Amino acid sequence: MIKPENLNSKLKKASYAVRGAIVDRAAQLETEGRKIVYCNIGNPQALKQKPLTFPRQVLSLVEYPELPDRPGIEKFYPADAIERARHILKCCPNGLGAYTHSAGMPFIRKAVAEFITRRDGIPASAENIFLTDGASKGVQAAMTLLTNNENDGFMIPIPQYPLYSATIALYGAKQVNYYLDEQNSWQLNEEELKKSYAAAVKKGINPVAIVVINPGNPTGAILSEENIKMVLRFAREHKLAVLADEVYQENVYAPGMKFISFAKVLHETGDIDTTLFSFHSVSKGFLGECGQRGGYMEVRNMPKEAYAELMKLQSIGLCSNSAGQIITYIMVEPPKEGEPSYPLYRQERDTILQNLKKKAEMLYGGINEIEGMKAGTPQGAMYAFVRFDLPEEPGRNISEMSEEERLAYESRRNMDYCMALLEETGICVVPGAGFGQIPGTFHFRTTFLPPMEDMAGLVEKIKAFNRKYTEMLKNRK
Amino acid sequence: MIKPENLNSKLKKASYAVRGAIVDRAAQLETEGRKIVYCNIGNPQALKQKPLTFPRQVLSLVEYPELPDRPGIEKFYPADAIERARHILKCCPNGLGAYTHSAGMPFIRKAVAEFITRRDGIPASAENIFLTDGASKGVQAAMTLLTNNENDGFMIPIPQYPLYSATIALYGAKQVNYYLDEQNSWQLNEEELKKSYAAAVKKGINPVAIVVINPGNPTGAILSEENIKMVLRFAREHKLAVLADEVYQENVYAPGMKFISFAKVLHETGDIDTTLFSFHSVSKGFLGECGQRGGYMEVRNMPKEAYAELMKLQSIGLCSNSAGQIITYIMVEPPKEGEPSYPLYRQERDTILQNLKKKAEMLYGGINEIEGMKAGTPQGAMYAFVRFDLPEEPGRNISEMSEEERLAYESRRNMDYCMALLEETGICVVPGAGFGQIPGTFHFRTTFLPPMEDMAGLVEKIKAFNRKYTEMLKNRK
Repeated sequence: MIKPENLNSKLKKASYAVRGAIVDRAAQLETEGRKIVYCNIGNPQALKQKPLTFPRQVLSLVEYPELPDRPGIEKFYPADAIERARHILKCCPNGLGAYTHSAGMPFIRKAVAEFITRRDGIPASAENIFLTDGASKGVQAAMTLLTNNENDGFMIPIPQYPLYSATIALYGAKQVNYYLDEQNSWQLNEEELKKSYAAAVKKGINPVAIVVINPGNPTGAILSEENIKMVLRFAREHKLAVLADEVYQENVYAPGMKFISFAKVLHETGDIDTTLFSFHSVSKGFLGECGQRGGYMEVRNMPKEAYAELMKLQSIGLCSNSAGQIITYIMVEPPKEGEPSYPLYRQERDTILQNLKKKAEMLYGGINEIEGMKAGTPQGAMYAFVRFDLPEEPGRNISEMSEEERLAYESRRNMDYCMALLEETGICVVPGAGFGQIPGTFHFRTTFLPPMEDMAGLVEKIKAFNRKYTEMLKNRK
Repeated sequence: MIKPENLNSKLKKASYAVRGAIVDRAAQLETEGRKIVYCNIGNPQALKQKPLTFPRQVLSLVEYPELPDRPGIEKFYPADAIERARHILKCCPNGLGAYTHSAGMPFIRKAVAEFITRRDGIPASAENIFLTDGASKGVQAAMTLLTNNENDGFMIPIPQYPLYSATIALYGAKQVNYYLDEQNSWQLNEEELKKSYAAAVKKGINPVAIVVINPGNPTGAILSEENIKMVLRFAREHKLAVLADEVYQENVYAPGMKFISFAKVLHETGDIDTTLFSFHSVSKGFLGECGQRGGYMEVRNMPKEAYAELMKLQSIGLCSNSAGQIITYIMVEPPKEGEPSYPLYRQERDTILQNLKKKAEMLYGGINEIEGMKAGTPQGAMYAFVRFDLPEEPGRNISEMSEEERLAYESRRNMDYCMALLEETGICVVPGAGFGQIPGTFHFRTTFLPPMEDMAGLVEKIKAFNRKYTEMLKNRK
């Protein structure tokens, strides 16, 4: 039998908190008949969010390609969904069952470029669009391209989405942490970037790229234009590629705030030197089509040799799945005003976004009122990264621990808390240690995706649990 | 800008012939108005093979989940497709838009295990099934798990499917070639395996696994039970994991031959020590659903720590796409005799398989009649790996070349031939060098997927081109 000690040690080092031990335990409790509220992952349709009607109607028609032409079918599908399906089948005459171009169907790549131009008022080219199985696969393609040896480093925000730390570990690169500024609504801080970069270089690391997640995961923070400019300037100065994870671009809740893309700022600053990879997905926003695995990566300022390598990499994986490509197409080219499906599409979209906003406000508001807990202000994405206090344990002296011991100790306490929350309430959240946090602080990430009627109860349960758990710690001998 | 010289050197070394320079040239000619016959890749639906009706009907229904319950819908879908869609939506109440379990939807994993039991008469467990985005992603997961350092080697057949060589290069492992026995219908030869293994060990390589493709790609060979037993014995002796690529298991054409799975032979020999990964896909067989990216990996004799690492790896990629999972489900659980869709399903299946058989016979028969060309006997899969003679070039002395020079020289001549074939006839095949061949021999791989009416003309065109091209070489000064 293969021997565990001989297996990929990089894989062994990788960890992916969003689906780790705590989720396994939740699944086990569920099989034992407990009701579990999965707040561990941004998976809207697992929490009763219904898929939007129009994209699914179109998919339904193109999967069964003779359907659009069957007499009487207009009783079951609106005219524009049928029209759209015909258009898709005309643009991809091989249908959904043939391998597509490695970078995706040409007409969809073109539609994505046009979407970027409409969104940002900047030029975009279909050639620079790669359709991917969700954003994750795009991120991994970019990181594969950029990782050449074990000293190559990726600067990632702390807290971060663990895809980044897991992929860095898996590819044998170096993780270079920069802390987000919790006091300043989790924006990036230039001094912190400089400090992080310098510390990495001092350790012999060669930073090759900086990862930015906007709107933030797990923080929900929306970056200001100034902040984005600063990051691009910093990247240019240090010859770093930029990986802009923009999958929550539709999830903006704070009044007066708006999403600004890295592509737009890059274009407007006239920077033709900094290589930018940006990522989008059908899994988040209001579509929430996680299971369909659709998304795209746009590249800018990419030398042609690098482009050729990226294309080769995609060709080794053949192509992304065609249903995901079609949903991506509908995402970037939704029904337009005046078309039969538009009113329903708009209503479904707005209801989902308004509900997310309301639920964000309920969650953040409720959490902020709990003694010893803080969630800041809801801005965007689908999460709250909740900070909570834990009373000191008697007989433990942090100042006597090595850094590593302290991290392990605090990480264990963080996990114990979340595991107890799960056992007590059935609420499944992810310990902050999985995303990264400043030593001495404790967080958990929770989505605000559960149905409205569960949200108030959710906060109440967390409150009651927190009181009981911290009391228990305080009373420990 | 990112500098090409700093990019992933392993990626740069990787090559993937099936979608390389020759295909780029074909696409270019096509935009110039030339008719191209794409024989480079097993992509049936790009060559006018129609998707089977039942799987697409079911997908169409589940993508639009309110459809199965709409009155009147039975005019458009047979009762068993509607019933099946309802069953699927009951088994996955979150629908196709939610992330599934990292290893795929539990009911589909169970159906796959039952399929293996029905096919082979052996026990199989849903726990050991991982649903993947096509077989390629399963293969890459297994290779990720097994590659620990740069001396770890994978024994691969020559000729092979270039996914293997590309992935080995990309992951920084070592490629250990063993030649298939062209004289003996491309079976594996034990002496050759021993020789290959010993030569690798002598070079400091640590072989960790052996890859076998059955039915063969590009060879079409179907392995005998004896041959499979020999491979498993060899693997056990040398503590190698076995990667069995069985994606062409439905594509068996030779009278009296049948596909035998590695799982069956492993089970029957009572070997509880050799770790086996086997792979299947919806892309080949008679479904030909390449674009849907569905497939599975089954693992056997897997230690639980390795299993946990594999599951973690899959969780970092979240899950395979849900439409691909559904098609995989239909593949392993097709309509049964007595159900309304069965007659059409059977007719479509049998027509495709019979046509493939006829086209294989036409292609192999025609090729074998061309002077200086040989394709052997059609057994399985979707390809012929055609050997052809090339007259010596005057003024070139192979015996004076280093091994590397000779390989480069012959690889160039192989490519020139295929490129000229493309320019002259519009037929796009892949040079044998992309799959590997014994030095001094020349091959190309062609599919026999073009529509029946094109097949005879195809062989004629190859014949005429070959005569002209070899004459031209002979007449060169």
